[in-house]
Amino acid sequence: MTFELLATDGAARRGRLTTPHGVVETPVFMPVGTRGTVKSLTPDDVQGSGAQIVLANTYHLFLRPGPALIRELGGLHRFMGWDGPILTDSGGFQVFSLSKLRRISEDGVRFRSPIDGAEHALSPEEVIAVQQALGSDIMMPLDECLAYPATRETAEASLALTVRWARRSQAARRAGAPSAQALFGIVQGGSFVDLRRRAVDETVALGFDGYAIGGLAVGEPKALLYDLSAVAAEALPEDRARYLMGVGKPEDLLEAVARGVDMFDCVLPTRNARNGQAFTADGPLSIKQARFTRDPAPLEDDCACYACRRFSRAYVRHLWMAQELLAYRLLSLHNLHFFARLMAQTRAAIAARGFGAFKARFLGRYAVSSLTLGRIPEHGHISDREA
Amino acid sequence: MTFELLATDGAARRGRLTTPHGVVETPVFMPVGTRGTVKSLTPDDVQGSGAQIVLANTYHLFLRPGPALIRELGGLHRFMGWDGPILTDSGGFQVFSLSKLRRISEDGVRFRSPIDGAEHALSPEEVIAVQQALGSDIMMPLDECLAYPATRETAEASLALTVRWARRSQAARRAGAPSAQALFGIVQGGSFVDLRRRAVDETVALGFDGYAIGGLAVGEPKALLYDLSAVAAEALPEDRARYLMGVGKPEDLLEAVARGVDMFDCVLPTRNARNGQAFTADGPLSIKQARFTRDPAPLEDDCACYACRRFSRAYVRHLWMAQELLAYRLLSLHNLHFFARLMAQTRAAIAARGFGAFKARFLGRYAVSSLTLGRIPEHGHISDREA
Repeated sequence: MTFELLATDGAARRGRLTTPHGVVETPVFMPVGTRGTVKSLTPDDVQGSGAQIVLANTYHLFLRPGPALIRELGGLHRFMGWDGPILTDSGGFQVFSLSKLRRISEDGVRFRSPIDGAEHALSPEEVIAVQQALGSDIMMPLDECLAYPATRETAEASLALTVRWARRSQAARRAGAPSAQALFGIVQGGSFVDLRRRAVDETVALGFDGYAIGGLAVGEPKALLYDLSAVAAEALPEDRARYLMGVGKPEDLLEAVARGVDMFDCVLPTRNARNGQAFTADGPLSIKQARFTRDPAPLEDDCACYACRRFSRAYVRHLWMAQELLAYRLLSLHNLHFFARLMAQTRAAIAARGFGAFKARFLGRYAVSSLTLGRIPEHGHISDREA
Repeated sequence: MTFELLATDGAARRGRLTTPHGVVETPVFMPVGTRGTVKSLTPDDVQGSGAQIVLANTYHLFLRPGPALIRELGGLHRFMGWDGPILTDSGGFQVFSLSKLRRISEDGVRFRSPIDGAEHALSPEEVIAVQQALGSDIMMPLDECLAYPATRETAEASLALTVRWARRSQAARRAGAPSAQALFGIVQGGSFVDLRRRAVDETVALGFDGYAIGGLAVGEPKALLYDLSAVAAEALPEDRARYLMGVGKPEDLLEAVARGVDMFDCVLPTRNARNGQAFTADGPLSIKQARFTRDPAPLEDDCACYACRRFSRAYVRHLWMAQELLAYRLLSLHNLHFFARLMAQTRAAIAARGFGAFKARFLGRYAVSSLTLGRIPEHGHISDREA
């Protein structure tokens, strides 16, 4: 895998990742296909929305249907019918957020499956082996994802464990058969600026194909998310892609791009679609609202997605009220299209060195959120939790 | 609307309906889009499956979102994004099967909405007005759909009421603005051969654009369904389409075609899809079964549908086990494709005067069902209930 930096505009970067399954123009948003499917959509729908790469969850696929089955059926690309690039996460975040009775040791994690209660163990080496069976284009090493808030002592110990696991992941990958699969490093460090910087130094010293900023979007204040992203991005090498895991809302994407982040993933567009929310340039709307009952307009004016080209808000609301499956699908399709378009506009703005103006214009119109965002300085002070 | 009879093969007919929204080659199976959506599918999916015409339920659309709203938004075709022909039923069957506290009088039906308990009344005239607001290509008049079994006395009185309602429906249509919407008559008469013949005579005397055989597929034995279909079809005019409402399984379609029926509708392919069933030339299969866990084959060999071209049984089963929405969609897509292909093969076989051989070959391979069907003579005696 290669990463080319094509242009910059302040800290914002316009780049290009080349993977075994195709090129990814950055900044990029990756739709989440948790169990090998972006919920309610076919691979063709996902591609048609403008998505270039999808994320799949190692944790979910490990539990069901299992890596051996996916390998036997030709790997994850073939299994899910997606020919483009795939990034698989390490499962670390899900072990911490979904599993009961999880236990962390130097060796790795032990946890119970939420499906059947069976106990499983995953070491850093096994997490690499699982992702090798899946055959994803970009693998992530097992990391410890701290809850927010965490003490400095906890964050420091956790960061050290994550770095030791990263080294073992790298060794496991080198020990395996030669492969075109890339491996990213994950920067942890809790909400402490110096620990984030230490995490960057120690992870970069190991030498990865790209770097993820982990342990954020776990409930911390927005200002902290933005500032810690900036701290990590500034310290990371210029010639590698930077991936902010689990982020986020449209405004978060733009704020993080402004701080030098290249890649994002989040369930937001598809999960919120299944809760009746459509993203629009004027802010999100809830199709449940009675004001859309007779509205002949599309979900979003001037949107070129299939849902907007073919159907009215009134129809989508009717489907929603009747709990018709097509409602979830049309809203998911539109939201993915919205996120892909936002990233395409972002790339064009950076290339034209007009990203700041584009971001201000977008956030000004995307009204609700901009009221909040206006109070957050672009590179302001870290919150009180820093010390 | 016109109907041309293009070829016959025994009692089987190859025909062509021309509607304001396009041509329908018969015999034809109509997917059911109950609430203005064929569940889980877009109009493009439905068209891509080979479907030529869809059915929508007047009862459901009357209750929600209501005919005034659909008219305001440009009619049902525009509302649901389907440019092809639409047949709307009268709502009669749903009043009888879904509504609580229904009351039937000479004037029409009164019933409570299962959505909010509100009381509604529909007369034959109002049922026509609702379908005019929807703007369907083929309308159905309000009819009384008897439960099975019913006494001769009940069936006779019910048949007479249905004929009186048919006359009022026709008058209501004539009284309205001139319209290209067709109106079918519905033949009732319970399970009594002479009443079925009387229903045909009295309904045909009124002169409709086509004729439906109603009150079947309500729990009666298969032999009775086939025989009563034959009785009605034999008595109906050759130059009008014959539509067997609510039927049915693949074997039922072929048996009814053999008896002179041209049109069918049923929720079977889509409802069974959502229950994990895929139709195949070798009989239906349940994707829930463990034997498909590692099966790399498509749902059906040699099927050209999107689901079969792109995905394995193992993947569809994985989606099913994980309750992923895409499972319902892929199975629905495949099943509609299966039904459309069966009807296309039927049309070709009739045109080539080889329908009998085609039917025998199909049923021989479609193994499970053929064991049952083998015991039913093509034009055998009516069951004991006839007398």
